[in-house]
Amino acid sequence: MRFFSDNAAPVSDAVLAAIASANTVDTAYDGDALSRRLDDAFSDLFGTRVAALWVATGTAANSLALGALCPPWRGVVCHRDAHINNDEAGAPEFFTHGAKLMAVEGEGAKLTPDAIAAVIDLIANDVHRVQPAAISITNATEYGLVYSPDEVAAIGAFARQRGLGLHMDGARFANAVAHLGCSPAELTWRAGIDALSFGFVKNGGMSAEALIFFKPELAADVAIRRKRAGHLLSKGRYLAAQIHALLADDLWLANGRAANQAAARIAQAAVGRLVHPVQANEIFLHLTTEEAARLRARGFDFYDWGPGEARFVTSWSQADHEVEALAAAIAAL
Amino acid sequence: MRFFSDNAAPVSDAVLAAIASANTVDTAYDGDALSRRLDDAFSDLFGTRVAALWVATGTAANSLALGALCPPWRGVVCHRDAHINNDEAGAPEFFTHGAKLMAVEGEGAKLTPDAIAAVIDLIANDVHRVQPAAISITNATEYGLVYSPDEVAAIGAFARQRGLGLHMDGARFANAVAHLGCSPAELTWRAGIDALSFGFVKNGGMSAEALIFFKPELAADVAIRRKRAGHLLSKGRYLAAQIHALLADDLWLANGRAANQAAARIAQAAVGRLVHPVQANEIFLHLTTEEAARLRARGFDFYDWGPGEARFVTSWSQADHEVEALAAAIAAL
Amino acid sequence: MRFFSDNAAPVSDAVLAAIASANTVDTAYDGDALSRRLDDAFSDLFGTRVAALWVATGTAANSLALGALCPPWRGVVCHRDAHINNDEAGAPEFFTHGAKLMAVEGEGAKLTPDAIAAVIDLIANDVHRVQPAAISITNATEYGLVYSPDEVAAIGAFARQRGLGLHMDGARFANAVAHLGCSPAELTWRAGIDALSFGFVKNGGMSAEALIFFKPELAADVAIRRKRAGHLLSKGRYLAAQIHALLADDLWLANGRAANQAAARIAQAAVGRLVHPVQANEIFLHLTTEEAARLRARGFDFYDWGPGEARFVTSWSQADHEVEALAAAIAAL
Amino acid sequence: MRFFSDNAAPVSDAVLAAIASANTVDTAYDGDALSRRLDDAFSDLFGTRVAALWVATGTAANSLALGALCPPWRGVVCHRDAHINNDEAGAPEFFTHGAKLMAVEGEGAKLTPDAIAAVIDLIANDVHRVQPAAISITNATEYGLVYSPDEVAAIGAFARQRGLGLHMDGARFANAVAHLGCSPAELTWRAGIDALSFGFVKNGGMSAEALIFFKPELAADVAIRRKRAGHLLSKGRYLAAQIHALLADDLWLANGRAANQAAARIAQAAVGRLVHPVQANEIFLHLTTEEAARLRARGFDFYDWGPGEARFVTSWSQADHEVEALAAAIAAL
Repeated sequence: MRFFSDNAAPVSDAVLAAIASANTVDTAYDGDALSRRLDDAFSDLFGTRVAALWVATGTAANSLALGALCPPWRGVVCHRDAHINNDEAGAPEFFTHGAKLMAVEGEGAKLTPDAIAAVIDLIANDVHRVQPAAISITNATEYGLVYSPDEVAAIGAFARQRGLGLHMDGARFANAVAHLGCSPAELTWRAGIDALSFGFVKNGGMSAEALIFFKPELAADVAIRRKRAGHLLSKGRYLAAQIHALLADDLWLANGRAANQAAARIAQAAVGRLVHPVQANEIFLHLTTEEAARLRARGFDFYDWGPGEARFVTSWSQADHEVEALAAAIAAL
Repeated sequence: MRFFSDNAAPVSDAVLAAIASANTVDTAYDGDALSRRLDDAFSDLFGTRVAALWVATGTAANSLALGALCPPWRGVVCHRDAHINNDEAGAPEFFTHGAKLMAVEGEGAKLTPDAIAAVIDLIANDVHRVQPAAISITNATEYGLVYSPDEVAAIGAFARQRGLGLHMDGARFANAVAHLGCSPAELTWRAGIDALSFGFVKNGGMSAEALIFFKPELAADVAIRRKRAGHLLSKGRYLAAQIHALLADDLWLANGRAANQAAARIAQAAVGRLVHPVQANEIFLHLTTEEAARLRARGFDFYDWGPGEARFVTSWSQADHEVEALAAAIAAL
Repeated sequence: MRFFSDNAAPVSDAVLAAIASANTVDTAYDGDALSRRLDDAFSDLFGTRVAALWVATGTAANSLALGALCPPWRGVVCHRDAHINNDEAGAPEFFTHGAKLMAVEGEGAKLTPDAIAAVIDLIANDVHRVQPAAISITNATEYGLVYSPDEVAAIGAFARQRGLGLHMDGARFANAVAHLGCSPAELTWRAGIDALSFGFVKNGGMSAEALIFFKPELAADVAIRRKRAGHLLSKGRYLAAQIHALLADDLWLANGRAANQAAARIAQAAVGRLVHPVQANEIFLHLTTEEAARLRARGFDFYDWGPGEARFVTSWSQADHEVEALAAAIAAL
Repeated sequence: MRFFSDNAAPVSDAVLAAIASANTVDTAYDGDALSRRLDDAFSDLFGTRVAALWVATGTAANSLALGALCPPWRGVVCHRDAHINNDEAGAPEFFTHGAKLMAVEGEGAKLTPDAIAAVIDLIANDVHRVQPAAISITNATEYGLVYSPDEVAAIGAFARQRGLGLHMDGARFANAVAHLGCSPAELTWRAGIDALSFGFVKNGGMSAEALIFFKPELAADVAIRRKRAGHLLSKGRYLAAQIHALLADDLWLANGRAANQAAARIAQAAVGRLVHPVQANEIFLHLTTEEAARLRARGFDFYDWGPGEARFVTSWSQADHEVEALAAAIAAL
């Protein structure tokens, strides 16, 4: 029973079906009919004109976005535990040609304007210091917390005031929206987001993420840089098909909601052990080594997360019986 | 009737089936059972110990290979019309951090030791000049010609003698092997190839290429750089599944053969118009503007290739009736 | 008797004196009084508002200029034999983060709008091809030829029409201006130049070149990138002092004129052997191996320049008796 | 009376004289007699075979060293307040092509094996995390503290054990050696240092620093990368001359000693106000805003260093009367 990662989950049936439907002759790269409909599909979803590019990984989406918002000689403010800082092998540095990630602390991997200001206000404005160019936040965060539209808007206002771009790593954007019940627009461009990595792979997709620019003029150079990074797939229609399948009837949102509900059920059983509130699909628990071993002996797979802590992630397809079994096992510890 | 590009073709049924079969819970990234079997599968195919990494595009495969063979301050010798030089948006420069592509001329986009020597022997061995570190050849070439094992081996011997690495862009490796009837080993490591971009996407695959290192010790850093370039897909099992499906029963070779046969049929009908001999699945024809227009009016799609020339590409799935129709239409011009 | 390179020459007495005069306590980096006067000094010289930055090498000046005019994913058009393409170890690729140098042919290392168009008009305007962003010309060229203001203006008009930036590598700018008798303005911004590497080191300076931006707004990021490249010297006043010394009373121009005159004297004696017309301070001669050996035996140092050719360079300080001796020796061959 | 920076100081008379003596015709770049003697001169000084390259800035020396010790996809451990992390505009990221600086805390900008281990032991050994490749320490540190040979050796042993390279930023190496009274060898290669940025500019030089490799085989690629970074000056003899002048009769050490003594005199007068012990030529004082203003009113220039602190730096040429005046003024506060 895998609670390792939402990357371990299978893909939605609708995604498989869409891939099969796309299996005809069409134009290569992103010239096909499905890819050409992406801008419209996301513009509808967000209620404003956006430019959307598919890529095969969240790391590519994040890094291309940061490359668009930050030149090589400036920096990107992010949480110290941000995925871009810790789990992408230096991809942001690669795609930006050496920009600096500027780590900020904050409970549950969340940033605030004050925490950001405390770091960047120390940077003298001269040519010796790397100056910030952008902020990147993750929603839901690496610890499963969710920024509300107001919290994002506060950072958005701060970013505008300082002349900084604002990126959202939405690898678990669906989980955030599902938790909040807000519109995708409220959580993004209305709150000042310039670029969003809209995650599908952790949420029922196979190999397609979307990079959304709320300033569509940013997309032209990114389309070139996507190719230059080897991320313009030859048969892009199979990626676009996945995205359209997940957007149809808000399947992406239903999948996010399902994962969240599974996590909530487990959180309920683990109430005294929670390291962070459970808002999305990740549960961080205080677990002794011995307790962790006991859970593993019962067939549960999960990550140790530093001494005395463990991470469980639920997916859109987590079986009810697995969820109930884990909840029971934790309660019984 | 599309003769634009083999990228326009659909994917083999076996590939779709394999993807569907892989649709279960498994370990993320390349930790799954299918990905872990790739080294063995390719080692069997090549009859020697290799390291194999999947990536989603040929550009990624080529660029990661070149990054492994060439430091930022040296150069890669290639044909002036090589895909890496002309059609990858500077990806080799991006992945190598600015190495120089050193263009060499040659009929049909083929290199020879003499042609390479004529260029690199002019480079004074001092710190002012960029020194070559590697050679990259394409097989089949960008003009549909095929290097024989002996031709590759001559370049391989030259490379070893000069201390240069040797990469083969095998976007159409299947077409080359199918044409030659040789073993994959003869055309690669036995002839001095260090790294091969083994193309599947143009040949019945959907989104999986293989990067093969015949010096397996090169692969460890490349695995890191694959992640750093955003090319470590979260659900790699769906890529590995495609590759295994195409390797099974030599489907890759059958597909390559089918495409070649379609091209040969068209070449037969176009004998006086051939710009290059047709050995793989590309046909370059002398066509006047008026003739090209006539073919288009009959429903054939293809690329103009400079003034008075046109390129037709056949795919593994090109329908017989399309092939016959095109052959007849060309003969009737 | 050295005719190897103008880099071998000593520095003008005025430069040494200026360095000694600068040997006081002052602000570090470029905050000192001398550095702060550079913008004004060059604005006076060029008759328009410019931004000027000192750097220690021509390679740094060229590469910083190109970095300002070309993003990593585009290209710089230059002559195949341009110093930036051949003699800077890939520095332009380093500073631009991998932009492509696009080689154009042309007699005497000179470019024309037609020759440039012939190359870049072949580049399809899609994301697969690297698009040009700038043109770089060298004046005087690597073969000692000089672009006239009209010739530069023709390229300038072409550049503007195509939306390309225009850089002039003026390592031997003094020699060009001395030859033409025009104003520095006519040869640069009035002819469409955006950035000029104004060479002083080959012309009596010790370690200071000037990078001039005729679009001063480009200089702010370059000032950062100069630091980032390790080119913001701690005690910049010693560089600024050199430049002011060479600008005073047009010493730079007198030095350039002296070097040109020495070259003209030698060219006169070598009239039937000239590979290129001699306009600046470089003389390329047809010389057999045996003739070259004879000259060397008489004490003359120079470069072989491919089979049957040799390069002689005169400096601002070339002694008359050396010049006469070389002229006589060549005439006597 | 400037206590801003040792970069504000003039250059030693011997340096000026050496530059004047070098003002003859000689081979360009680093082919001249003086440059060719550098390896020997430093090998003598360090009592082991080293390779030495001049560069014009400490930032270039540091960044070239780090580029030699760390590939683009790994990281360099350094103190959070290290010059390379804070004051070089991202030059290490530029020269390494995007390696990550991994910040460690420590009193007075000093690192210890334990502090380093505490950071890097958290980095899981997988392709998602950037792995460290090297450690960089500054001696004397950014806060004027000095690592002893034993302290360096402890870090050296740790580095070897973890397979990490070890660089010393010796912008104030002279001050460290002068404080310790040890040999240059004890403080460097005998303690495990692989590469040293040996600072001269802050210590009586004008524009020449030395990059010393105790593993001479590292220098060949660095010589190329120096050129590629625009740091191979055309007339290198004027840099080499400066270095030889400072090495002669241990002038470098005498200069370092003089600066230290000036600092010690001031520290004596400021005993209750010292933020850090004064071991080299930097004095960090607790000063109220009002006290700082009072000192400035008396003609002393210095940096504020965060709220309630100020930095004073003494140079090799600091006039006795200035030192006495400052000491008296501080004592009188």
